[in-house]
Amino acid sequence: MKLILDLDTGIDDALALSYALGDPAAEVIGVTCTYGNVVREQALENTATLLKVLGRKDIPLFAGPAHPLNQTAFAPTPMCRVVHGEHGFGNAPTDSDGMLIQSQRAVDWIAEAADRYGSELTLLTAGPLTTLAEVLRCHPDFKNKIGKVVCMAGALTVAGNETPFAEANVRVDPEAAAEVLSSGLPLVLIGLDVTLKTLYDQAQIDNLQQLKTKASDLVCGLMQFYLDYYKTDRRRLAGCPLHDPLAVAAALHPELITTLPVNLKADLEGPGRGRTTADLSRLNDPQKDHHMAIDVDVQRFLKLFTASLTRTLSRCEKAES
Amino acid sequence: MKLILDLDTGIDDALALSYALGDPAAEVIGVTCTYGNVVREQALENTATLLKVLGRKDIPLFAGPAHPLNQTAFAPTPMCRVVHGEHGFGNAPTDSDGMLIQSQRAVDWIAEAADRYGSELTLLTAGPLTTLAEVLRCHPDFKNKIGKVVCMAGALTVAGNETPFAEANVRVDPEAAAEVLSSGLPLVLIGLDVTLKTLYDQAQIDNLQQLKTKASDLVCGLMQFYLDYYKTDRRRLAGCPLHDPLAVAAALHPELITTLPVNLKADLEGPGRGRTTADLSRLNDPQKDHHMAIDVDVQRFLKLFTASLTRTLSRCEKAES
Repeated sequence: MKLILDLDTGIDDALALSYALGDPAAEVIGVTCTYGNVVREQALENTATLLKVLGRKDIPLFAGPAHPLNQTAFAPTPMCRVVHGEHGFGNAPTDSDGMLIQSQRAVDWIAEAADRYGSELTLLTAGPLTTLAEVLRCHPDFKNKIGKVVCMAGALTVAGNETPFAEANVRVDPEAAAEVLSSGLPLVLIGLDVTLKTLYDQAQIDNLQQLKTKASDLVCGLMQFYLDYYKTDRRRLAGCPLHDPLAVAAALHPELITTLPVNLKADLEGPGRGRTTADLSRLNDPQKDHHMAIDVDVQRFLKLFTASLTRTLSRCEKAES
Repeated sequence: MKLILDLDTGIDDALALSYALGDPAAEVIGVTCTYGNVVREQALENTATLLKVLGRKDIPLFAGPAHPLNQTAFAPTPMCRVVHGEHGFGNAPTDSDGMLIQSQRAVDWIAEAADRYGSELTLLTAGPLTTLAEVLRCHPDFKNKIGKVVCMAGALTVAGNETPFAEANVRVDPEAAAEVLSSGLPLVLIGLDVTLKTLYDQAQIDNLQQLKTKASDLVCGLMQFYLDYYKTDRRRLAGCPLHDPLAVAAALHPELITTLPVNLKADLEGPGRGRTTADLSRLNDPQKDHHMAIDVDVQRFLKLFTASLTRTLSRCEKAES
């Protein structure tokens, strides 16, 4: 399956990309970067650094939106720095030297790719829904051409992570989410309902660390930073949640998840701003635009994730011992 | 199946009881009344009036809690008067003369019935969870004896009806709901997620009206009052939602609903007070205490509801023409 990843890189975005590059079911044809866990320029820098270390400088990188639809600038929340590190990359140094950012806008390139590849193409968004909203605004035909769109977004049956009501990717640009959800574009949504079930723990990280390549040093370092935060999180999860990697896996292997057919909306007002719920005005519409993940085969996913990540990280140059 | 109904009667409570009395799958062994749509005494008065008109003065009636766990009094919200009428019974006159209220407390009688009937007995709560919370407090053994408990309560994938976050039965006594949900008692929950899909419209009421018995006059009058409110409701539903009747039907015919196995909690603080979501601390516990309805076979339920209600209402004395 041809795959475009729209990332706000971010540790779990980096894990999602590393995973995708090792899963034989995926052919990553390009990465687009947007704001979210970090500012867009930092997301580009982090992604470029990762692609270099993974030996995949061949994958083209595009710049997406730099701020929410109704704003003119963006700064990540203080919490993003705590979870993902000062620059969204644990505290690992970045070095994107020699990696080119394409001059074409991400929004136009995505639409062009949908034109070219049609039903063979899947778009995976792991950040705010701004990129997708802008694709739909600028290229109305996109929704009839793209094969599948999978979003890591929302929280339906569980509390949010940015507020008690809202998941972070929706909360950061609820207007974009509202536009996308009411656009008629069929979506698969992978939200906190399932990503909080797919946890990676210390033993699993320690195992990967044994690969001892430059790439495993970097990626395991990122994961360790992320896990160390979750060890202090008030929800006391038994590991770090693999939000974005699960969304990629669900795009490639739909049998991993159980979904609820539903028509969702995003709340824009009041304390619930950024909350996703079933749209009452379309509750009894037999046509359901969205498939929201409500359960996941955790063990099968973790096995797949580890196997694919191992493939990605093993291919790379050995670390100096 | 032996059935106890715990009602805060209320129009849809009256419909639930009328439906249950006509469904051959149910043997209603008694009704307990609590506060909610009205004060407890009014719920008793309304239920007694209905049982008299339906010719079922043989069904014993018990008084349950009169107010939420942490309060000493209760008054229904102004909205209850709008939806259910000044006294919760449309504006129909009540006349409970000759109907006795049992002297035993509802809470003790329910526990005694669970002792006697065990797995044959189902408890259906259509009001706040206070009665059930008090049964669990006073009779800790109840949860090992009762066959099944089904509650019309909660909203998981949709907005609430009492607040944007909370369904009315949970919102009125969140502490009771929180106790019940964390008690380990297995529950089936029928919430707004499905009850807002089961709508009764004008044509269906007009049809029942043709029965022309005293009972159909009363019950169709109640339904008409209820539908007339929903014609003005901002959610613009295509009829009046059969909240409590659907819960009874789901208890008797589980194949009508699709459920999500989940461990729920009720929020106690902030704007989300009364909200039900998956409890993150038990998200990855393989044991799931709750089965929350997320879909319903609407047409099959409406057919069953109409057939059973017709049975109940036909049996009664003809109205004077």
